[in-house]
Amino acid sequence: MDGFKHVTGGVTSPPGFKASGVKAHIKYDRKDLAVIVSEVPAAAAAVFTTNRIKAAPVLVSSRHLADGTARAIVVNSGCANACTGQKGMEDALEMARITAGCLKCKPDDIFIASTGVIGQQLPMERLISGIKDAVKNLSRRGGHDAAEAIMTTDKVPKETAVSFELDGKTVTIGGMAKGSGMIHPNMATMLAFLMSDVNIDSQLLRKALKYAADRSFNCVTVDGDTSTNDSLVILANGLAGNRRIESEDEGFQVFRDALTEVCSTLARMIARDGEGATKLVEIRVRNAPSFADARSVAMAVANSSLVKTAIFGEDANWGRIICAVGYSGVEVDPDKIDIFIGDEKVAENGAATGFSEENAKKVLEKDEITILIDLHLGDAEALAWTCDFSYDYVKINADYRT
Amino acid sequence: MDGFKHVTGGVTSPPGFKASGVKAHIKYDRKDLAVIVSEVPAAAAAVFTTNRIKAAPVLVSSRHLADGTARAIVVNSGCANACTGQKGMEDALEMARITAGCLKCKPDDIFIASTGVIGQQLPMERLISGIKDAVKNLSRRGGHDAAEAIMTTDKVPKETAVSFELDGKTVTIGGMAKGSGMIHPNMATMLAFLMSDVNIDSQLLRKALKYAADRSFNCVTVDGDTSTNDSLVILANGLAGNRRIESEDEGFQVFRDALTEVCSTLARMIARDGEGATKLVEIRVRNAPSFADARSVAMAVANSSLVKTAIFGEDANWGRIICAVGYSGVEVDPDKIDIFIGDEKVAENGAATGFSEENAKKVLEKDEITILIDLHLGDAEALAWTCDFSYDYVKINADYRT
Repeated sequence: MDGFKHVTGGVTSPPGFKASGVKAHIKYDRKDLAVIVSEVPAAAAAVFTTNRIKAAPVLVSSRHLADGTARAIVVNSGCANACTGQKGMEDALEMARITAGCLKCKPDDIFIASTGVIGQQLPMERLISGIKDAVKNLSRRGGHDAAEAIMTTDKVPKETAVSFELDGKTVTIGGMAKGSGMIHPNMATMLAFLMSDVNIDSQLLRKALKYAADRSFNCVTVDGDTSTNDSLVILANGLAGNRRIESEDEGFQVFRDALTEVCSTLARMIARDGEGATKLVEIRVRNAPSFADARSVAMAVANSSLVKTAIFGEDANWGRIICAVGYSGVEVDPDKIDIFIGDEKVAENGAATGFSEENAKKVLEKDEITILIDLHLGDAEALAWTCDFSYDYVKINADYRT
Repeated sequence: MDGFKHVTGGVTSPPGFKASGVKAHIKYDRKDLAVIVSEVPAAAAAVFTTNRIKAAPVLVSSRHLADGTARAIVVNSGCANACTGQKGMEDALEMARITAGCLKCKPDDIFIASTGVIGQQLPMERLISGIKDAVKNLSRRGGHDAAEAIMTTDKVPKETAVSFELDGKTVTIGGMAKGSGMIHPNMATMLAFLMSDVNIDSQLLRKALKYAADRSFNCVTVDGDTSTNDSLVILANGLAGNRRIESEDEGFQVFRDALTEVCSTLARMIARDGEGATKLVEIRVRNAPSFADARSVAMAVANSSLVKTAIFGEDANWGRIICAVGYSGVEVDPDKIDIFIGDEKVAENGAATGFSEENAKKVLEKDEITILIDLHLGDAEALAWTCDFSYDYVKINADYRT
């Protein structure tokens, strides 16, 4: 086995999946409704938002996935169907029922998701006609349309795929995601949909998904706000014909690592397309006492508005970085901390190094910036992805709803 | 006893205190060094940042206050003397020594504070000549100069005073504060200096200060970043001649409440002058299971970048408010939450009310906005102060250091 390789495409890259994206006129005058279908019943697993206020589609989908199987996914953008009371729950169930009717399967086999404004009811008439339209348009080449239809403030659609060999069979994993604001970890942030033709037990699918989420979507933050609608789901239809993965053997690990790669790729795309972002920022923490500590430090720095505005201003203000390390809650030793911006060591043993501002500026002018924090307290490491904080973040969010 | 009344002035309002603010040219070409002196030894208490990375002046001042007394305070702006290693500690001790020398008292009686850029060394020559200059200029009318000298990105100096009767004697409390960015609670955020002529035991002074801080500075957030330098200190010189407060009697409570009023007034000034702020926002949470829960909810909403940008955009986007309530970590019941923006009930039982957007807009156009969140789960309440999140926050922080 040689690991995995990236291939072009998205959710319809694996055999047996069709998708479409259509204009349902829910809020935008552009594609805003997507359907993805597996030709055969598929093993399914998902992780959802940890926000205590969960949108109706999250509540419905978590019930529908209890049996570990699904056939199709329907997603709308423009309205989150969150904080919509009893009517919202009825609408979410109806959304699944209508889709199931069109596809001749059970409502329980439908995974639903919504994204957009909180507190507004779904325009059911337009939604239903959109679903019918989308089902009519399902195609093996519809993945890109689907990726476009789930965007809200996203500037670019986000899709990726990898393939790898298992038992002499080619297995593919394709995925798409959306997310630009209201993004914070502690869950599969935002919406992400992954399809694979791998043959796998649904419990192991869930285990692999959780593993991948913790190392990808849960490492992204744009603004520290955990949404009511975050959902990450994978369908695996088994058409690759590999020997069914039923234990945590080598095959499982190959799949899990490939899945983690798909999730990481999408997660980085989300950070890069953060609302108003001009730069992708990777925060690496090493030599921490534990993974949890490393993660807490990485996320504190990634969430700091002051760090993010300094990066927008291309200012090597490492004092803000070390300040965030200090309030992360982790018992760091201030006198042991080293900080690098790109290759430039800006702080050593918790104090300035007399680094070259010019070199640091060159690093900060780039599109992708890595900040490395060495705690010198153990051997655990973690990373977080974020973006810089620009005028446009404020602009986008000052008039998003209106 | 009739409680307290506001009087004009600041740190030199109480008898026996002198102050000055001078140009030491540390970073800015304006007043940047303040000294405050009590003519007689004073009881003293302080609370400091919870950030694990503490600036040298914080470490020195907490040692100097261990005996519960102090004579003078010296503060510079423009350089935080944080993350400055052994040299930073030596400079901080020297700052106290020089001030003590000029005032003919012990270095242990000097409280020092610094605010500004992290990671740079103090320009000691300019600082020392500034201290000498400031001591020469000490005056009973120097409070305002001192309040100006501690500003960094603050747009306005912040000072206030109250007086009240105790045992037939007039007691005064005067205070000044600075803070505009890197402001987050879990401590006496930013720098605040309070002077009083009250006669009180230093343990009880500390108790009153902690009480007041929890209900004032610890309720303010501008950007969620807890600084390395936060310090709140009070000196009480006893010149009012009241019977010494030595137990938690009625006199203690009168003093404590007056102190809380001084702290609240300064805390609100800090929120209103938050970096880039155009509005002061008060978040009130009521009917929570506990004070800690009420506070967690209030702070989650106050810290939400999405809520703060919506308020800047004068958009009644209550979905973002309830979303923040949901991720606050408190076990709320989504179906019981009511939300008011000003007088307008925008959400009831966790769903939209069909409120008047026009009325909500009128509320949001004002300079001061109150958001009330009723959890209907208990009888505890708490509040938090914050500001809106504007283009200018980004502008200020993208080029603060350079």
